[in-house]
Amino acid sequence: MIKPRTPAGVLELLPPDQIAFQRMLDTIRRNFERFGFLPVETPVMELTDVLLTKSGGETERQVYFVQSTGALAKAEEGTPELALRFDLTVPLARYVAEHEHDLAFPFRRYQMQRVYRGERQQRGRFREFYQCDIDVIGKDALSVRFDAELPAVIHAVFSELDIGAFTIQLNNRKLMRGYFEAQGVADPELQALVLREVDKLDKRGEDYVRETLAGEGFGLQPDSVARILDFVKVRSTSHADALAHLDALGDGNAALHEGVAELREVLELVRALGVPESSYALNFSIARGLDYYTGTVYETTLNDYPQIGSICSGGRYENLASHYTKSKLPGVGISIGLTRLFWQLREAGLAHSADSTVQVLVTQMDEAHLPHCLSIANELRAAGINTEVVMEPAKLGKQFKYADRAGIRFVVVLGEDELARGGVTVKDLRREDQFEVTRAELAQTLRVELAQAQVLSTR
Amino acid sequence: MIKPRTPAGVLELLPPDQIAFQRMLDTIRRNFERFGFLPVETPVMELTDVLLTKSGGETERQVYFVQSTGALAKAEEGTPELALRFDLTVPLARYVAEHEHDLAFPFRRYQMQRVYRGERQQRGRFREFYQCDIDVIGKDALSVRFDAELPAVIHAVFSELDIGAFTIQLNNRKLMRGYFEAQGVADPELQALVLREVDKLDKRGEDYVRETLAGEGFGLQPDSVARILDFVKVRSTSHADALAHLDALGDGNAALHEGVAELREVLELVRALGVPESSYALNFSIARGLDYYTGTVYETTLNDYPQIGSICSGGRYENLASHYTKSKLPGVGISIGLTRLFWQLREAGLAHSADSTVQVLVTQMDEAHLPHCLSIANELRAAGINTEVVMEPAKLGKQFKYADRAGIRFVVVLGEDELARGGVTVKDLRREDQFEVTRAELAQTLRVELAQAQVLSTR
Repeated sequence: MIKPRTPAGVLELLPPDQIAFQRMLDTIRRNFERFGFLPVETPVMELTDVLLTKSGGETERQVYFVQSTGALAKAEEGTPELALRFDLTVPLARYVAEHEHDLAFPFRRYQMQRVYRGERQQRGRFREFYQCDIDVIGKDALSVRFDAELPAVIHAVFSELDIGAFTIQLNNRKLMRGYFEAQGVADPELQALVLREVDKLDKRGEDYVRETLAGEGFGLQPDSVARILDFVKVRSTSHADALAHLDALGDGNAALHEGVAELREVLELVRALGVPESSYALNFSIARGLDYYTGTVYETTLNDYPQIGSICSGGRYENLASHYTKSKLPGVGISIGLTRLFWQLREAGLAHSADSTVQVLVTQMDEAHLPHCLSIANELRAAGINTEVVMEPAKLGKQFKYADRAGIRFVVVLGEDELARGGVTVKDLRREDQFEVTRAELAQTLRVELAQAQVLSTR
Repeated sequence: MIKPRTPAGVLELLPPDQIAFQRMLDTIRRNFERFGFLPVETPVMELTDVLLTKSGGETERQVYFVQSTGALAKAEEGTPELALRFDLTVPLARYVAEHEHDLAFPFRRYQMQRVYRGERQQRGRFREFYQCDIDVIGKDALSVRFDAELPAVIHAVFSELDIGAFTIQLNNRKLMRGYFEAQGVADPELQALVLREVDKLDKRGEDYVRETLAGEGFGLQPDSVARILDFVKVRSTSHADALAHLDALGDGNAALHEGVAELREVLELVRALGVPESSYALNFSIARGLDYYTGTVYETTLNDYPQIGSICSGGRYENLASHYTKSKLPGVGISIGLTRLFWQLREAGLAHSADSTVQVLVTQMDEAHLPHCLSIANELRAAGINTEVVMEPAKLGKQFKYADRAGIRFVVVLGEDELARGGVTVKDLRREDQFEVTRAELAQTLRVELAQAQVLSTR
């Protein structure tokens, strides 16, 4: 006998949680499609030489390699031929480069699949997790206007996910670079080091960071340090306030100027797309991956749960697939790490307890009536209602209890009396209510009840 | 520069095909849920000792093992700790045994995920492919009535997939065993060998099979051989004909008797579930995996494309998870290999060319009107319409051509004249028709148009 168990670092769900998770995936997908993004799926395995174009680094240390029994038996030296994807960006780059001549640009794709990382074992860290990504990829060039669509998608997704108030935080790498240059921090690596110190503001406090930056290691002028600290503390409180912060930066150097112009255009179009100004803000401390993003950058946080961190991040990059094609492919994208988000929401008690996917249980009072029960189920299913039938005899109370525990709201009872009258009794377990309808009216009545329940549950 | 390419044996799709594939997945899932099956997803990686409980065999030779960079670097001897699932049945067994005390039995689950097999490289053979499975698992016992639900699910799924007329073929392993015993073929292994010869009927012809079974190797009596050949040729032509075939088998031995009774009950309940009698038939030649299935067995074939083989198969098994738990867990299930089916339908020219997921393209005549265009898109999206906006200036003709090629049916045009009148022009690229509506009416008008298009496309 072998103990049934899953590997460490995976999140396997029982059906009620799986239903809730699936509804989140559906909501995300529906909204991605609402904004005109097209579905892509790629194989979980990529050729190792295609996947690992960058040498070394954290990523490569976390890759899972795949070997068939045959390859393993040969005990081949060297790196296996196949490996599991560790994100959806490298597969996107490979996909776009491989199918370049069959795609229309700007290419708008969404992809929602699992990725794999051999993370250190730790609570809340997953070795297998869903990423839900959208990207727009241009050929040669891509207008900054596309950068404005992504906050609108983020707003639509998280409004419908209904997990509380959130803020989409915007910054621009060019603006940041320009500002730092003006403070005498021109070297990109030095900028990265300064930003790493700035990141410690919350944990170590302002004095610590100020002393570090003005101290021996960095040797920045005290007024430069003061200006940098003022800069990274900027959070806008309204659309007008965001524009005022941009104006206050003045003309500055070319990079700053370009970054300001881009952010201004993005803000105006985000507003035109109907995103309420309470849902977005400038945050000049946001940098994201410094060697990757080059323009707009995004992070999204839950207002009441800042400790969860960013629940949706991304930005603008210069060239997606330089390892695979000579074509220049600039893009902008965002990613939601849904497995981790789901786990965090559940930990925070924010996960919605979902109704079952089963909407109606047809109970069984008398074995002899099973064909009747099946025929009723057939009518309900034809009307689009998810229906389960009790197939084996059991006490009626036990059948009700099962429905209640499983989160099935409506129960259909077909007893002798009802049969004689051509009627059916419907029990609403939520409202602890029951009523009788004719069999001819049953499907339509339940459709109306379910539609009402749906409206009420989404307010 | 590295050539962007996928590993051999995977099916990666361009967006139009991916949309068609995704719609098939959605249809299957919707119907699985319609019949009260609950979603389950399991990790793609299982612990090797959990996955490979049976020693040797074809399966083990095709397994993909997974190793993190760290494990690989240590060049450990022996079998890696992790491996990719090769079907959804072993993970189901592990899942049910692991979560036994948290599940309600009979446990009705569906699972639609990819599985991995290191198949020999061959056209139409896939190393990564989707399986779409449903199973009902009982604790200790499971009524044969559940066996009747699966043909109803198969009927619902393939009717809605709309890929042509199909027949769900039914048989029963007990009936088969009983009949073979009565012909002097009592040994299970001998039965398997006889069935393997019988399988050659189509390819080698009846004379060849008759001579083989009556010949030295098998040494069966000629009249036994004749009765076996008559038996395996049985195909019922209607519900009444199916019952008549069962009656004609007589009482026979215990196994035959039990098999006949089970098949009779299944047939009656399949009818009660509203499956038309043209969609199911007895086929006494169907055996499926002999060491696994013990009662009802199913295969489904497309009437006009028999060469595609079974598109949905399964059956009843005695005990799901004997390797993991002492509990007896009988079950019944079916599986659709969707990747292969999609590929075969496409090869046969049966794949439906799908409209884009994008329903409306808002074109751009004048850059200055972009905020207007975005605002209109916002209204359409709020009305549930999947909308793409042209974000960069281009000739209108080019924008129309893009929509046409992408399969986007409706195009919204917002010119000076329309703007002045507060109107919007809608072009229907399918009907090559156009009309003007007020902006206030736009979303509602397009909803009606799209609903009509949907009704017409599904007949």
